[in-house]
Amino acid sequence: MGLVFNQDIVHLVPSQSIKYIEKAKIMKMQGIDVIGLGGGDPDFPTPKRICDAAYRGMTEGQNTHYTLGKGIPALRKKIAEKLNTENHIKCGDNNILVTPGGKLGIYNSVRAMINRGDEVLCLDPSWVSYAPIVQASGGVPVSVGLTYEDNYKITADKLNAVTTPKTKMIIINYPNNPTGRILHEDEAQELVKYMNAHPNMILLSDEVYEKIIYDGHKHISIGSYPEIADRVITINGFSKCAAMTGWRLGYVCACDELMKPIAQLWEHIMTCTSGFIQDGGVEALDCHEEIEEMRKCYEERRDAFIGALNKIPHVNCLYPEGAFYAWVKFDLPGMDSYQICNYLLENAKVVGVPGDAYGLGGDQCLRFSFANSMEDLMDAAGRIEKALNEYNTSN
Amino acid sequence: MGLVFNQDIVHLVPSQSIKYIEKAKIMKMQGIDVIGLGGGDPDFPTPKRICDAAYRGMTEGQNTHYTLGKGIPALRKKIAEKLNTENHIKCGDNNILVTPGGKLGIYNSVRAMINRGDEVLCLDPSWVSYAPIVQASGGVPVSVGLTYEDNYKITADKLNAVTTPKTKMIIINYPNNPTGRILHEDEAQELVKYMNAHPNMILLSDEVYEKIIYDGHKHISIGSYPEIADRVITINGFSKCAAMTGWRLGYVCACDELMKPIAQLWEHIMTCTSGFIQDGGVEALDCHEEIEEMRKCYEERRDAFIGALNKIPHVNCLYPEGAFYAWVKFDLPGMDSYQICNYLLENAKVVGVPGDAYGLGGDQCLRFSFANSMEDLMDAAGRIEKALNEYNTSN
Repeated sequence: MGLVFNQDIVHLVPSQSIKYIEKAKIMKMQGIDVIGLGGGDPDFPTPKRICDAAYRGMTEGQNTHYTLGKGIPALRKKIAEKLNTENHIKCGDNNILVTPGGKLGIYNSVRAMINRGDEVLCLDPSWVSYAPIVQASGGVPVSVGLTYEDNYKITADKLNAVTTPKTKMIIINYPNNPTGRILHEDEAQELVKYMNAHPNMILLSDEVYEKIIYDGHKHISIGSYPEIADRVITINGFSKCAAMTGWRLGYVCACDELMKPIAQLWEHIMTCTSGFIQDGGVEALDCHEEIEEMRKCYEERRDAFIGALNKIPHVNCLYPEGAFYAWVKFDLPGMDSYQICNYLLENAKVVGVPGDAYGLGGDQCLRFSFANSMEDLMDAAGRIEKALNEYNTSN
Repeated sequence: MGLVFNQDIVHLVPSQSIKYIEKAKIMKMQGIDVIGLGGGDPDFPTPKRICDAAYRGMTEGQNTHYTLGKGIPALRKKIAEKLNTENHIKCGDNNILVTPGGKLGIYNSVRAMINRGDEVLCLDPSWVSYAPIVQASGGVPVSVGLTYEDNYKITADKLNAVTTPKTKMIIINYPNNPTGRILHEDEAQELVKYMNAHPNMILLSDEVYEKIIYDGHKHISIGSYPEIADRVITINGFSKCAAMTGWRLGYVCACDELMKPIAQLWEHIMTCTSGFIQDGGVEALDCHEEIEEMRKCYEERRDAFIGALNKIPHVNCLYPEGAFYAWVKFDLPGMDSYQICNYLLENAKVVGVPGDAYGLGGDQCLRFSFANSMEDLMDAAGRIEKALNEYNTSN
């Protein structure tokens, strides 16, 4: 056949995290005793009261019909209240679009905002799907290289260095996957300064790890800064914080002007998100204790896992301030992150994701998820230590 | 602000069916006794056993985590078996992509197949979202005008008349929304002839009303013709036939070569469909009796409703062969379909959708859904008769 498919799509790079997660699954199926720390999926079940709310919705509530396109009023109202009170983002029900997962909300927003050839800044290291989403939308992803040595600090200078007349949008993600960094006040001010200097720029802020934050830090939503609020699209969801990855439930918040094209596209690609899943979302917004319990667990695991890793020679890991990933730097001259990842996969039977999959600034780094049992995490740290000792002895 | 959004998206026309459904909802909220026949949503609840299967999945089954991107193996296997045996489409599990609703499956497929400026044929009258989906994908929708007088028959001549070197894809939908036509063997042969003459063309077949078919007719899947099977994308889902619109559950079937770019885009915009909703889908594929019960109900309603409409002077309605819409032609000189729709909305308090919303061939037509109670349907027919009598007396 001489079929020619979409040239933006056929050149998309597959998600490396999914690739390594599937490698782990295949090894397990082959009977290999592998510890899979590649994925970003909480090991907790969804709190039962959320499941029960969804079941009530689909049976008694008969919420099995199309809902309003943007979402059921009860959920949109509650999300808007949460954003106003917790995040200091001024919005009403109509500024909320409920989506089946944050990812589709991000794609729908980027696609609705940019035109062919527009440039979109991604603060690397960054989640593996931002750049492909930009490409799939016809745009050009541009990396802003933050650095390990700098603790991945944002400065307006770094942003300005790669800004061109074609730069249309900037994507940020705090708490950050993969680095575990949160957004600090001084960085938020740098972003505001940058946005003020570029009045036609739109900022998309993915805050899906919002509730998983440590050491008493406070989450900052960039959409709370009044000067730039009408050019900020806030993405959030239930996947990570409420252990609802497989529900596919997220939301987009944007001012009326930005929401209009976002909703125009939405109507024709999705209609609406499942109604009873939205009922589950209403319940999840009340699960403060359950969410806090899981957060505490992640914090204990973080302390133990990062502590154990940092005792290993040639291994360095900053304490993540949020999210549930250890972002580990290996001081192993001559090996890049893919080689390190494959070495540990084969020799320690521990699966991570190579840092270079996250763009610039991931050199010699690996991402390990600690959304796994303490037992597996301690076992993994021991295996990594052993494998590295063998490597350093033989090299 | 001087923000410039995506120029394909900002020019999308809102869905007229959604617009009229919402008009009906607002009138109801105002206390007006309106009968809403605008929507395409079965009035039946989802069979309880499907709800129970989903609940088991989310609790006992702990199916609240990410699933494989294309869908859970049990569902893909069962869909592939169904397509092989019932639809005579040769496919394996890996040719199936499970999606949250057929609509996103269509968008994802069209977006992955076409490049900017490619032309896509839509056989008008056609579902209100095909043309916007093509536009949102950067393509150009081209109408093939089928006609009421011809009973909307497809011929290769009609397709050839609008085919250009830029024509890349053709979208068909049988049983058809809005006309109620099914695909007949001679028409399928015309499509095969056309596809053979255009070896780089892709055909997307939306078969979401497959099980709602009357008078003992048999559904034909165009993907069952071996000569062109590797260029056919089949879309189907659970919304209409199993009364699961609000679940958002559908699927795409395509050969390996076509599935590759479709899955590449999918991975970065959606990750996966909700796992326990897929458990519900596995159960739904066994609900043959429940689905047949609903089909029979629609057939009784069709007979009564179309019968009553055809007794009204100046009203003509062919008996739909499938789906659950009455596609009604009004012989009212001087009024277009929007005026007729608004006249009936105001004077009969019956809500339909103007035929012109479906592209060419909808002149002076209205679409009424008979996925509504027999009582409402008979009441609506009486109201339409009365309003038209008044109109014809006063004009």
